[in-house]
Amino acid sequence: MSETVENAAPGRGGAPRAEKVRVEKVLPISGFPELLPAERFVELHFLDTIREVFELHGFAPLETRAVEPTSRLLGKGGDADKEIYGVSRLAGRSEERGGSDAELGLHFDLTVPFARYVLENAGKLAFPFRRYQIQKVWRGERPQEGRFREFTQADIDVVDVGELAPHVEAEMPLVIAEAFGRLPVGEFRIQVNNRRIPEGFYLGIGLTDVAGTLRIVDKLDKIGPEKVAAQLVAAGATDEQARLALALAEVRSTDLSFVDAVRALGVTHPTLDQGLEALAAVIAVGMERAPGVLVADLRIARGLDYYTGTVYETQLVGSEEWGSVCSGGRYDSLASDGRTTYPGVGISIGLTRLVHLLVSKRGLTASRSTPAAVLVAVVDDEGRSRSDAVASALRARGVPCEVAPTAAKFGKQIRYADRRGIPFVWFPGAGDDGGDQVKDIRSGDQADADAATWECPAADLRPSILTP
Amino acid sequence: MSETVENAAPGRGGAPRAEKVRVEKVLPISGFPELLPAERFVELHFLDTIREVFELHGFAPLETRAVEPTSRLLGKGGDADKEIYGVSRLAGRSEERGGSDAELGLHFDLTVPFARYVLENAGKLAFPFRRYQIQKVWRGERPQEGRFREFTQADIDVVDVGELAPHVEAEMPLVIAEAFGRLPVGEFRIQVNNRRIPEGFYLGIGLTDVAGTLRIVDKLDKIGPEKVAAQLVAAGATDEQARLALALAEVRSTDLSFVDAVRALGVTHPTLDQGLEALAAVIAVGMERAPGVLVADLRIARGLDYYTGTVYETQLVGSEEWGSVCSGGRYDSLASDGRTTYPGVGISIGLTRLVHLLVSKRGLTASRSTPAAVLVAVVDDEGRSRSDAVASALRARGVPCEVAPTAAKFGKQIRYADRRGIPFVWFPGAGDDGGDQVKDIRSGDQADADAATWECPAADLRPSILTP
Repeated sequence: MSETVENAAPGRGGAPRAEKVRVEKVLPISGFPELLPAERFVELHFLDTIREVFELHGFAPLETRAVEPTSRLLGKGGDADKEIYGVSRLAGRSEERGGSDAELGLHFDLTVPFARYVLENAGKLAFPFRRYQIQKVWRGERPQEGRFREFTQADIDVVDVGELAPHVEAEMPLVIAEAFGRLPVGEFRIQVNNRRIPEGFYLGIGLTDVAGTLRIVDKLDKIGPEKVAAQLVAAGATDEQARLALALAEVRSTDLSFVDAVRALGVTHPTLDQGLEALAAVIAVGMERAPGVLVADLRIARGLDYYTGTVYETQLVGSEEWGSVCSGGRYDSLASDGRTTYPGVGISIGLTRLVHLLVSKRGLTASRSTPAAVLVAVVDDEGRSRSDAVASALRARGVPCEVAPTAAKFGKQIRYADRRGIPFVWFPGAGDDGGDQVKDIRSGDQADADAATWECPAADLRPSILTP
Repeated sequence: MSETVENAAPGRGGAPRAEKVRVEKVLPISGFPELLPAERFVELHFLDTIREVFELHGFAPLETRAVEPTSRLLGKGGDADKEIYGVSRLAGRSEERGGSDAELGLHFDLTVPFARYVLENAGKLAFPFRRYQIQKVWRGERPQEGRFREFTQADIDVVDVGELAPHVEAEMPLVIAEAFGRLPVGEFRIQVNNRRIPEGFYLGIGLTDVAGTLRIVDKLDKIGPEKVAAQLVAAGATDEQARLALALAEVRSTDLSFVDAVRALGVTHPTLDQGLEALAAVIAVGMERAPGVLVADLRIARGLDYYTGTVYETQLVGSEEWGSVCSGGRYDSLASDGRTTYPGVGISIGLTRLVHLLVSKRGLTASRSTPAAVLVAVVDDEGRSRSDAVASALRARGVPCEVAPTAAKFGKQIRYADRRGIPFVWFPGAGDDGGDQVKDIRSGDQADADAATWECPAADLRPSILTP
């Protein structure tokens, strides 16, 4: 099955190009989600709210290009390489090979590009530098529920030169707590750990392969405590070491009691002390400024190999199986040019996953599929100009509206509005005195109105987000 | 020269990945522009204003994925193919070949993806469908001043089933006129033509190769009238035909006088009549709703091969050499599935080019490099919590602020604000009664203030756009 599509790209702003081409049936591409307009309003509400909170906290807006040299994206082995999308001109590959152009790939997160941006523009930035960045990223992973190949991340990071003040490690999750608190995500928990805690603890009980131990303990949710213990023993731990490592992973609290719980395990090590102190400082600030939201959770191991201090994960209460919808942590060396080291801390909202899951699993939607709050009816073709003038007057006062596409019967024009969820239909000249009238098509109420003074109810001005 | 960069991608929200890699010196990639924060504020101001105007006019928000099957992007020959960036997984190429995945490329405009989206979702959309779409696009063209390989377009389109009402052809440029009227772009002209005018005119004087004639006349600005005439004659036109074709191209007016000017050339053809009538209708609406902005300009030939009715180009007065910053037109068949045809009309702002040129050529910038209107000073380390409370109170009332990173001397904290353009510094406990004070660091004025009631001057709440 195929169809003819007018590939009528006008080259708006560029060279014209177009051909009639026969193409295969139009099908979605797995992992590249698209939304209908009402769903896009939900996403925009999230984007706008997150941006507003980020800006209230003084994070500067930034965007980086979508591509980086693949040499900058590629890790050494591991799964990452397979996940990178390479980019090259279809017809210019041979021509550009051997040229000065580096091989390019689409960025798979916003941290690698940000680190590069900091190095490239260090002389023009004021440190500590606080930035937010909300952009698409691409990963060639196998698509699954809530996991996409193209998705939007919303990141904040603070980066400094040489040293980074520890209080920003408490600040990051509080910014997220404020954003989530304004969004229809329900209850949520931000789990916090500090990599020095397991590191110091493992060293304190004589497990020197910290990374290896972490990798095994990280499987706790998947394979359960018995298998984790068995794998730890298989890797050389004693039964007692395995028991203690598991006991540490089970410690969690929304207050500072986690410190005593760890102490009760009887392990001491200077790195453990540092970690407990740092985590207690973060939780203490959280208790004061966002009670109940931050949880010290010594099980979370996200990227503990890579982060060097505090780490964060975020779960929506009742939807823990969705995994973390917002994660991050601290690096002692976000970037370095060999002379200067830039420590940083950041956190990233997995926006596409979050919105997709809320829309598909919790039925979040918008009250209408258009921004228009008013449809201005057209009485007859000669009356279009009067309807246009009404629309201009409404827009000048901030009321989104559109003019009916045809001078159809009013019943049809009302159905046009109804189908899109537009709450009001405006009838020019419908009043007894020749003035206008406006009808709330939900209630059927119709009343005299003047476009220069009519107040659109605030709740109807923008599409609202509906939570069933 | 090389440096060590911590490619510390945490796989926030995904698999962790990171390696220390040695990479080449950090360099910009030609054609992939990036902005500093103050410049990004300029771009955001444009993006927000354009989106607001699009929504006021009832265009629904839409985004499409960045990739399309290359079969959908590729024209038949021509330059377009060379400009497409192909996308494929670096390490998964062999594995995916022969699989069900189509070859993918980055979209080079927003019209081709929109046409595909309409076909894919026709059953879920209400027609006529009005949408706006603001996204990055990619073209592998040779980068030059104001021409990029990655750039943002801001499009509106109206698409209908079977037939599209002609009045939307007048509506498109008026929406743009309203957006540009709110932006610091200075004076601008939207040039409008209708492809039926040259088509009917050429046929009326016996030039049957309409497309070939258009292509030659389109070079008028570059090579001048004599060479155009010579090329027309070389292509088979008589001297008189060449003279008339050039005379048509010279007609322009901001009122309806272009109709008489064309009539005075003594050419008649039914298609010419249709074109003149359609263009007169657009210009007449423009004269009423945006006097002086729309210009009937019978020279513009943009995509006349591809558009089937009205076409638009936009120039900034005094910067005509920048070329068109906003273009579009009407297609009788934006998309078709073989049974149903979807005519459409649209227009596209070349946002990256526009902002880049305004920033680099006209010196547009923002008043500061951070959203923060206030820096809350920190008196000493014990006082951070009080400063945090002030910041929370300010943010709750919509005032963007940040807390000083360290309890440095006040002079240093003031310099921190000054360097970023933050206008106010807040001093907790600086008042005689132990209350707070706020200093306008531009004037030096310092006064008692209470975070629960202080009014940030409206002009300072957001960074403002400065036009030198």
